[in-house]
Amino acid sequence: MTAERTIDQERAVTEEVLASFDGTADPRLREVMRSLVRHLHAFAREVRLSEREWETAIDFLTRAGHITDDRRQEFILLSDVLGLSMLTVAINEPKVPGATESTVFGPFYVDGAPEVPLGGDIARGAAGTPCYVSGQVRSVDGGPVAGARLDVWEADEDGFYDVQYPGDRSVGRGRLRSGADGEYRFWSVLPAPYPIPYDGPVGDLLAATGRGPMRPAHLHFKVTAPGHRPLITHIFVAGDPYLDRDAVFGVKDGLVVEAEHHAAGPAPDGSHPEGTWTSMHFDLVLVPESKLPR
Amino acid sequence: MTAERTIDQERAVTEEVLASFDGTADPRLREVMRSLVRHLHAFAREVRLSEREWETAIDFLTRAGHITDDRRQEFILLSDVLGLSMLTVAINEPKVPGATESTVFGPFYVDGAPEVPLGGDIARGAAGTPCYVSGQVRSVDGGPVAGARLDVWEADEDGFYDVQYPGDRSVGRGRLRSGADGEYRFWSVLPAPYPIPYDGPVGDLLAATGRGPMRPAHLHFKVTAPGHRPLITHIFVAGDPYLDRDAVFGVKDGLVVEAEHHAAGPAPDGSHPEGTWTSMHFDLVLVPESKLPR
Ligand SMILES: [Fe+2]
Ligand SMILES: [Fe+2]
Repeated sequence: MTAERTIDQERAVTEEVLASFDGTADPRLREVMRSLVRHLHAFAREVRLSEREWETAIDFLTRAGHITDDRRQEFILLSDVLGLSMLTVAINEPKVPGATESTVFGPFYVDGAPEVPLGGDIARGAAGTPCYVSGQVRSVDGGPVAGARLDVWEADEDGFYDVQYPGDRSVGRGRLRSGADGEYRFWSVLPAPYPIPYDGPVGDLLAATGRGPMRPAHLHFKVTAPGHRPLITHIFVAGDPYLDRDAVFGVKDGLVVEAEHHAAGPAPDGSHPEGTWTSMHFDLVLVPESKLPR
Repeated sequence: MTAERTIDQERAVTEEVLASFDGTADPRLREVMRSLVRHLHAFAREVRLSEREWETAIDFLTRAGHITDDRRQEFILLSDVLGLSMLTVAINEPKVPGATESTVFGPFYVDGAPEVPLGGDIARGAAGTPCYVSGQVRSVDGGPVAGARLDVWEADEDGFYDVQYPGDRSVGRGRLRSGADGEYRFWSVLPAPYPIPYDGPVGDLLAATGRGPMRPAHLHFKVTAPGHRPLITHIFVAGDPYLDRDAVFGVKDGLVVEAEHHAAGPAPDGSHPEGTWTSMHFDLVLVPESKLPR
């Protein structure tokens, strides 16, 4: 059989699979599945995927499934390290000038984090140098957004989120609301760089490809307010050695913030931290729904 | 921001991810991962993947992982219904004229099936009409292959493999060796069409896309012999209503075989089945390693 006939046979498989989606009632699902099949098949043909490699892929996905539970999401990690998460963010970013940019959601968000008052402490025992985080929530129109809900979460100075420790401790995360002028402020700890969990198949992939698992230090925000597009982002700490090699490709220049270091003494909220402390200031600029493409 | 700048931003993500594999020691792994990322990203850009759809995909893979165990392999089913399994078969098929064609392995092979003598019964209690299966194992060179190992497995007349029943019964599968002239023969039951397991996420996908889960009746073979390429294939029963709509795209014309129906009476091996019985004849033609591309 000639090489041409081989290629014909392979294309025939692809055409047959594409046609199998003709009866899909939802036109969007049909579009997505047909595109997925075309690109998946193009990949397999391009690399001349071996049966051994196919088995490796099945085994990889199986192991990812079995390590995934309520506290560990290996498929999100996989999407993250393949850049699919950041690409999805880029595709859906409204691109409204002046708006705070989005980045990856990551696997460590927990629904129902403790409510804290404006100015309260979300660290609640997480290890690290105290960090006073403040700014204003406003709209790209310029107006303050009062009563916005801010979910914030971060790793401690050892690079671990609460859910990565045994037990049910909920620390380094909290939910608060912006004040009447859109202002927000809370105490936490200065975030530290950390490795994404690398004791599973995604870690094996990073090791095999000579990639590191580290993420630069960051604090996660999810900001929601009526009439505005939800904002999912981080602030990164300026000067972090991993800013140019984030394992999940999440860094954007506009999200990098200086952390100011302070000697013991009065803080802006009138409190007196016992030792040295730090502060970060960052405004969160939301996009009103009126500016979103319909 | 203009549409062009949006596309630039998306391409920048892809370029950054591709560059992250520059340090991969194994050149083949680097090639495969870079191709995978390019095609995966091209898919996401082409369909303008929404964040909701991304979440649906993560949830789909998570459910597939959690339903997968020693007896159920949802990722193989997924590969099968997306045609990736048959495409991988096509890519790796040696294309030597006269050789028996390959098809999907499927998820129901079990290592260490019971050994049966030449002419023995692999049904061993599986429900169905007795079927006498025979033929010759030979090389494309024409010579018989004596002592080839044949693994055969099939669903019963209700469309279930032994591993789909509770308990540890091993029926409808066996291992035998071809005789001095390459001949093989065994008793089994006439295979029946069956649905692939559809109570998981792959079944949900088939339902949402208006596709059926049925496979036409078939008997699986895995044939191995020293000096030859292993052959993984099926024989399909001619006249089956699902031959043109196999859920996993496994049918090839050359693998469709007539099942002859017989009244009670003497069988070719001298036995006297109590009721009606059937027979199928199929030669298994292997490719010697000398004919494989190096
Ligand atoms: Fe994080
Ligand atoms: Fe089967």
